[in-house]
Amino acid sequence: MQHAQKKIGIIGAGLVGTLLAIYLKKAGHTVHVFDRSDDIRTIEFSGRSINLAISTRGWKTLDDVSIGDEIRAIAIPMDKRAIHTINGELNYQKYGMKGESIYSISRGGLNRKIIDIAEERGVQFFFNQKIWDVSLEDATIYIGETEKGDWQAHTYDIIFGADGAFSRVRHRMQRQNRFNYSQNFLPIGYKELKILANADHTHKIDKNSFHIWPRGEYMLIALANEDGSFTCTLFMPFEGENSFEQIDTEEKVTAFFEKNFPDTKELIPELLKDYFSNPTSSLVTTQCYPWTYKDKVALIGDAAHAIVPFYGQGMNAGFEDITELYNQMMNWGDNWIEVFKNYQEKRKPNADAIAELSFRNFMEMSTKTADKQFHLQKKIEARFTEKYPGKWLPLYDRVTFSLNPYVDALAIGDLQKSIMDEVMLQPDIEEKWDSEEIEQLILSKL
Amino acid sequence: MQHAQKKIGIIGAGLVGTLLAIYLKKAGHTVHVFDRSDDIRTIEFSGRSINLAISTRGWKTLDDVSIGDEIRAIAIPMDKRAIHTINGELNYQKYGMKGESIYSISRGGLNRKIIDIAEERGVQFFFNQKIWDVSLEDATIYIGETEKGDWQAHTYDIIFGADGAFSRVRHRMQRQNRFNYSQNFLPIGYKELKILANADHTHKIDKNSFHIWPRGEYMLIALANEDGSFTCTLFMPFEGENSFEQIDTEEKVTAFFEKNFPDTKELIPELLKDYFSNPTSSLVTTQCYPWTYKDKVALIGDAAHAIVPFYGQGMNAGFEDITELYNQMMNWGDNWIEVFKNYQEKRKPNADAIAELSFRNFMEMSTKTADKQFHLQKKIEARFTEKYPGKWLPLYDRVTFSLNPYVDALAIGDLQKSIMDEVMLQPDIEEKWDSEEIEQLILSKL
Repeated sequence: MQHAQKKIGIIGAGLVGTLLAIYLKKAGHTVHVFDRSDDIRTIEFSGRSINLAISTRGWKTLDDVSIGDEIRAIAIPMDKRAIHTINGELNYQKYGMKGESIYSISRGGLNRKIIDIAEERGVQFFFNQKIWDVSLEDATIYIGETEKGDWQAHTYDIIFGADGAFSRVRHRMQRQNRFNYSQNFLPIGYKELKILANADHTHKIDKNSFHIWPRGEYMLIALANEDGSFTCTLFMPFEGENSFEQIDTEEKVTAFFEKNFPDTKELIPELLKDYFSNPTSSLVTTQCYPWTYKDKVALIGDAAHAIVPFYGQGMNAGFEDITELYNQMMNWGDNWIEVFKNYQEKRKPNADAIAELSFRNFMEMSTKTADKQFHLQKKIEARFTEKYPGKWLPLYDRVTFSLNPYVDALAIGDLQKSIMDEVMLQPDIEEKWDSEEIEQLILSKL
Repeated sequence: MQHAQKKIGIIGAGLVGTLLAIYLKKAGHTVHVFDRSDDIRTIEFSGRSINLAISTRGWKTLDDVSIGDEIRAIAIPMDKRAIHTINGELNYQKYGMKGESIYSISRGGLNRKIIDIAEERGVQFFFNQKIWDVSLEDATIYIGETEKGDWQAHTYDIIFGADGAFSRVRHRMQRQNRFNYSQNFLPIGYKELKILANADHTHKIDKNSFHIWPRGEYMLIALANEDGSFTCTLFMPFEGENSFEQIDTEEKVTAFFEKNFPDTKELIPELLKDYFSNPTSSLVTTQCYPWTYKDKVALIGDAAHAIVPFYGQGMNAGFEDITELYNQMMNWGDNWIEVFKNYQEKRKPNADAIAELSFRNFMEMSTKTADKQFHLQKKIEARFTEKYPGKWLPLYDRVTFSLNPYVDALAIGDLQKSIMDEVMLQPDIEEKWDSEEIEQLILSKL
């Protein structure tokens, strides 16, 4: 079926906007992408980013337009967590039941690569274009140097808002009647730090692990880069004991790291410089509805559903939006009313589910990964999954290594949690964790 | 203690902004109130309002500046609900355990009266002033004819945003980092209708009742005005069967009312004119935090916490904000940092509690008031309250006829609900509702 070619404007040349552009171009449309910043390929991009972890959902969207392999070539597989205890021990926890990996990649590196590919395929980019307003009814964007200065109008057939957690497009939709919206900030902030490469460009610690220093209310993580370095992220409360507010002098930072992350002393030589020159960023969950306006405007990615990073699913969820949108384009052809309606109805419950799972996962990463009971539970789940693969899949695997809808992952995860809570309360569970009795108990609950 | 006189700007000349102005004037400050609309005293105000019901919290705030009696003179006490069944029966339910009343008053009438009083006491009003932006750091408001035109700047020591559910002041605060915000619309809208007075200016139905036609998913209510008329409000879903979308022709409206509200035929002679000329309005809950910026800017009333109207507490909660703020002014004197900090910390949990209670109460009004079990439960609660007045106060009474914090009302209400759920499940409860056994059961749970 030949579809009518549309003139489509995308606001935001980030990961989701750019990959969406590739899909729309593939479908035969004219695609213009606007971004308020400089071309990321021409500037240094660092200091306030958490490395990304591409997992199964993200790969599907990349592979469906045949660019997965190019990305895999610059990504580093991580098949396990490496837990750094406060005593300097290192414990490994495999991620997937079948040895699957998630893939570390820098945001800047991935973004540059996708923009290159989009340009090769005929997408036009316009950088340094500040969009101040959007007219929903006629899909017009208003661009100007300043908010109160003169604006130029550009009218499209369709506009996508892929402009992130603080989306201008959503901002305009928010002024409609009956638009539901929430933004909720965590009391926890984050700061980027850096583990430098060895002189020979090799990695100082295992590059195929997702490194975590879990300390309860705060934690440090590190993900490998191709150049031998690691991007580290310190998550810590803004206020209170052990907070960004309290730890505000060179002496305090040094003492805090020596006490809590002793094995990082050699790894992060520029700790003080990084700590005081990199910003402390905040973490927000945004939720809204509807995501679309008639057949004119649609939100996608963080603009529709920004989530906290603790499940590593922000980008993957945004890419899955594209897969769903494209499916609906194939189902409904030129009927963009139905494309948008079905897109938002399918994706909204899944976006809410991954928001909830991501919010909950801070506790898992920062506290439970250091907990013996948690490890035992993982072992019981692994054993059961292996024996009854059709009956059980651990929540992490379902979210990360499957294409099951997030909403199912949340529901099944809650059921599995209630079963495992009961299992862990069995007397002598440490001894009989691999017994027939426990197996039967789980089976009886499913 | 003599406090430093401040120059204070209030945005919004509604009920809360104007009453706040009276309090600030009393405390010795210079007070300017700005409003984007015409002076309500010079215009017709109707067509999209629900009559207000002043209850104990509201009266306290009015009485503390000695204006309660002037308001009581133009308000109509309602000591009971009058439930109009679909069969034309009329059942009465007393509101308070001690025969207390809530007081019906029109929004316009009350607002005009409070503005008059504020002006007499030296508050200055500036109407038709469109505020487009606020600078938080130096408490400056920007006023102009149009958003993109020239603006005048007015700088104050302190600014209050009393500009309602879609507050411009909050809008500016929302752009700060780490500002939590949500707006959630109900799928239910409302429309004003009118029961006209008799020729001799008497009321067509009992003026001392809050009239309800509870029909499950939709309902009609009516509150008396001084001139013999009633302001009616039809609450109904926007979409679906029996919705504003479906009932869109004169024939459909007539048939809908004849079938569902047969006894209103004589009462609402201008039904068709009202239905098609009055707008369908939406119902929103907004929540945000923080409410204040340093010692410069504070939100109050709907600007801080808009709620749905089903507990009749929107204005009362806004007035209670003023009482709390004034208490903190008396506690902290010129230390406005502490005034604002303590004001928001005290009020926020209470605002969240009344938002939740109001949201839940649609079901109670539209469904439960027509339910036999609900009446029996009310009787059991009334009997127990009378016998053990220190041990039980029905939720409605605690919210409406007490000054107990809303947050306690919610918590105690939930506990009482769980007890009453168990009581209502007792076999033969219809027979033994007033027995020693039931009394002992309740006592055992408290």
